[in-house]
Amino acid sequence: MAELSATSGVPVSTIKYYLREGLLPEGVRTSATRATYSEAHVQRLRVIRALVDAGVGVAGVRKVVATLDDPPDNLSDLVGAAHAVVVPQSRGDIDFSDAEELAQRLGWQPGMCEPECLEDVARSLDTLRRAGFEVAPEVMTAYLEAIRIIAEADAANIPVDGNPEEAVRYVVLGTALAEPLLLALRRMAQQISTVQRFPSQDGLGADTSS
Amino acid sequence: MAELSATSGVPVSTIKYYLREGLLPEGVRTSATRATYSEAHVQRLRVIRALVDAGVGVAGVRKVVATLDDPPDNLSDLVGAAHAVVVPQSRGDIDFSDAEELAQRLGWQPGMCEPECLEDVARSLDTLRRAGFEVAPEVMTAYLEAIRIIAEADAANIPVDGNPEEAVRYVVLGTALAEPLLLALRRMAQQISTVQRFPSQDGLGADTSS
Repeated sequence: MAELSATSGVPVSTIKYYLREGLLPEGVRTSATRATYSEAHVQRLRVIRALVDAGVGVAGVRKVVATLDDPPDNLSDLVGAAHAVVVPQSRGDIDFSDAEELAQRLGWQPGMCEPECLEDVARSLDTLRRAGFEVAPEVMTAYLEAIRIIAEADAANIPVDGNPEEAVRYVVLGTALAEPLLLALRRMAQQISTVQRFPSQDGLGADTSS
Repeated sequence: MAELSATSGVPVSTIKYYLREGLLPEGVRTSATRATYSEAHVQRLRVIRALVDAGVGVAGVRKVVATLDDPPDNLSDLVGAAHAVVVPQSRGDIDFSDAEELAQRLGWQPGMCEPECLEDVARSLDTLRRAGFEVAPEVMTAYLEAIRIIAEADAANIPVDGNPEEAVRYVVLGTALAEPLLLALRRMAQQISTVQRFPSQDGLGADTSS
């Protein structure tokens, strides 16, 4: 275990915690005090650390690990399973009509993945509505155009020809770990766009600093 | 307070908690047991509820509320302040070179908003790297193209001509509340794109169900 810790950079106490929580499989015991860990353990440790760093809780990590260990039979189910890891549980009684309209604009047809794949969008729209915050139609159109570009690139790059483990890894980690990247890129791009659009820092100063 | 609760749909006990936590300003006291609350209180309550529903913690809500109450003098600082609400604190010692390259592809120039606006992207890339997960160059190109569309629509729609409070509200809530929407849209679009691209559920079944 000391060796596993040195190779992975994860402290022994943390490795023991992951073993206790069932996130990391036990090594092959070679004596009362020694066990052998494989390259798969090192890989798994890296995945767990990255998910924890990305803000995924222990329960979420357990679901990711379970999906990696026992993936669903087809890609569409796999995408759904990957999303279930990062999406909070349902609150019920949400209006699906706006979500359905947005889905249609993204190529969705009734029966395609209903209602699971609409629910999270419906919930987000509901939250925005209750905050009294409206996404302007032209902004929503831009969002849909952008999201289609992202999702098509994501789907086109699922590695389906090789090892199925690769596809599982790509979909699960691509969902959980690329989300923080996309949000960070958006924030960075917003700052860049704002500076470009309002170079003289106008807009707010005159009214609020008085 | 009973009236405020009825108007806003937020329980009295929750309103009292928000008052204690300083998230909601006190009403104007009219007697020992009564206070008057304005439309601004109702508005503020809706914002707090929406942020809590979107998963923002009390400390985050306090920062949003502080920014709404005392906005920075210019739009670029406002965008930065809005992001500080939703971005975790720095961990230090991160390599900025890849983030800088992505920023340049989004129109960034040295000195524009360094290092704050690069840090979150650098941290996300670092997390991906430690997980051994690489975003393929063509996927990253698609991400950047999409993010530019989103950020330009966001910046173009900042309401700079009206009430400065409107601009503050737009930027702060547009960051905190539109993020869950964008992620939900991506997940929905991924499911749609996957079903369209792999209609016969091929790819994984043959190898993993045996």
